[in-house]
Amino acid sequence: MGGDNAPRSVVRGANIARKRFPNVDFLLYGDQAKLGLMLKRLPKLRRVSTIMHAPDRVGDDEKPAQALRGGRNSSMRLAIDAVRDGKAEGVVSAGNTGALMAMAKVVLRTLPGIDRPAMASFFPTMKGESVMLDLGANIECSAENLVQFAVMGELFARMVLGSLKPTVGLLNVGSEDVKGHEELRQAAAMLREGKYPIQFHGFIEGNDIAAGTVDVVVADGFSGNVALKSAEGTARLVSEFLRETFKSSILARIGYLFARFALRKLRVRLDPRRYNGAVFLGLNGIVVKSHGGTDALGFSTAIGVAVDMAQHGFIASMKREFERVATPLAVPGAAPAVAAEPKQAAAG
Amino acid sequence: MGGDNAPRSVVRGANIARKRFPNVDFLLYGDQAKLGLMLKRLPKLRRVSTIMHAPDRVGDDEKPAQALRGGRNSSMRLAIDAVRDGKAEGVVSAGNTGALMAMAKVVLRTLPGIDRPAMASFFPTMKGESVMLDLGANIECSAENLVQFAVMGELFARMVLGSLKPTVGLLNVGSEDVKGHEELRQAAAMLREGKYPIQFHGFIEGNDIAAGTVDVVVADGFSGNVALKSAEGTARLVSEFLRETFKSSILARIGYLFARFALRKLRVRLDPRRYNGAVFLGLNGIVVKSHGGTDALGFSTAIGVAVDMAQHGFIASMKREFERVATPLAVPGAAPAVAAEPKQAAAG
Repeated sequence: MGGDNAPRSVVRGANIARKRFPNVDFLLYGDQAKLGLMLKRLPKLRRVSTIMHAPDRVGDDEKPAQALRGGRNSSMRLAIDAVRDGKAEGVVSAGNTGALMAMAKVVLRTLPGIDRPAMASFFPTMKGESVMLDLGANIECSAENLVQFAVMGELFARMVLGSLKPTVGLLNVGSEDVKGHEELRQAAAMLREGKYPIQFHGFIEGNDIAAGTVDVVVADGFSGNVALKSAEGTARLVSEFLRETFKSSILARIGYLFARFALRKLRVRLDPRRYNGAVFLGLNGIVVKSHGGTDALGFSTAIGVAVDMAQHGFIASMKREFERVATPLAVPGAAPAVAAEPKQAAAG
Repeated sequence: MGGDNAPRSVVRGANIARKRFPNVDFLLYGDQAKLGLMLKRLPKLRRVSTIMHAPDRVGDDEKPAQALRGGRNSSMRLAIDAVRDGKAEGVVSAGNTGALMAMAKVVLRTLPGIDRPAMASFFPTMKGESVMLDLGANIECSAENLVQFAVMGELFARMVLGSLKPTVGLLNVGSEDVKGHEELRQAAAMLREGKYPIQFHGFIEGNDIAAGTVDVVVADGFSGNVALKSAEGTARLVSEFLRETFKSSILARIGYLFARFALRKLRVRLDPRRYNGAVFLGLNGIVVKSHGGTDALGFSTAIGVAVDMAQHGFIASMKREFERVATPLAVPGAAPAVAAEPKQAAAG
């Protein structure tokens, strides 16, 4: 029931996803009457869907704490509960981001070894596609948080984008005067130690994001959010300038007519609906946040992200990954937690 | 002598600027022999230029402290000294950013009422042009710093961009969970008090930058740098996609031929050389930093920014502006520094 066009975009998005993923079943959480009416017109979707009545919904302006307290019977909460209870393999929502994150953290909890979940999303670059995290869930990040984001983002790039040996970069600034915040320098030092099973590229700057210099861009939630939205705004600006250009003269209009099929492909390539679906990484369950203003096609992309993660056994892999790096992530010099086990196992 | 193509781009940039500003004289700081050779071929520039020999130059990798200590006879330092001594109205450099900022701070000092200078630049938006600051000079910013940036940026937009009633926004994130750093909230509260003679719009997000939601974007140096470079990278990405699009089929190539004049205008509109020249605001003198990798045309834009500021009497206006807001900028509750003056004057 979340997002600007709910539940229409959500239900129609499920109908598009149904064609791409014929083996997926849907639990639709929300107002039974409304959903029932919509499903009547979509018999094929109805066959693979179950309506789960939710008497409430979380408002777009509700504060996370408020949603946590009062939203126990909301569509959002009941859908997350279904993931915890094993009834669903993942939840996709176009609703209130803060409420979704807060509820998901409380209900699903973070995986062992991860202090805070991060929002991740993929986007087009000169070289293909890359992932960036965090996109706004954590405004202040410690070096440890950033290192955990790096490990989570690398696994996401490997499993969902299919990068073979993803490279990881830390977003920093290029002024020669400074080398960024202290946490960034510490995180870089930790990642350079080589204890983590990732290819650490080092620091990158804002222009490296679209250049595709690395497969995984790690940032605190503030910078990551600013970078992503600044890029989105610029892409819209250039598209608008291009539209004006093709209207600026008769010759330009004729040129547009000749090139319109190619330009349509460009529009598809840059269509934000193709990159819809931010993942909350680090939780013990799959949670994907769709843009609130997207349409059915955009929502189906977000469903696709959740399906991909489920089919790749992402959560189990993440657990294994963090068990593997558990020792280096512990405080240096502290007594090892695995002291009773044979040394070989601990080293593996 | 700074930048990738020095001194060629600098001298040729001056030659382009000479045509636009026939009443401007140039002091060219650098290697006398090299500069003399170049000027020989540019007799019209030679007529309005004086070569000022500088035995040293600041290296691109030199740390600011190192440049401060060892660079007293560098072209950069001597050019800044000329501004302090009233021999030049402003300095334009394509050299090491950190060294330029450090030297300018020590030699020119900040204006009364300003704690730290900020780097500002203008850029294209849906509605025209806007200014953003800080772009990397101050990684950590207090609320007071941000408020001072707001006042400086507003004056810059008014005097150099010619905005009549510029609006000012604070760059923040949009996640409902959080409302950004504490300093941002404090700065917003201070700007909302109405003591400052500016139109404060409130918080904006990354996508508002290119949308032109406000005329002046205020950010800490880290976020501002990330936002600007992320936007630059995205503009390059979309341009590259567009190039590929016009090569993707015969029809697209024909379309390009028809639209090529209009597309050339678009290229000019997005040309980063048109937006070259970051201003160090808050110093007692005009200092403009050109991109190190730019060519003569780009460098001439940076010269143009300095000329515009000088012709508008920017530094004197900035002094007046900060004298006017001196009382609200003082620590609340502290004894007013103007207590001996009549009340009316202090209120003006």
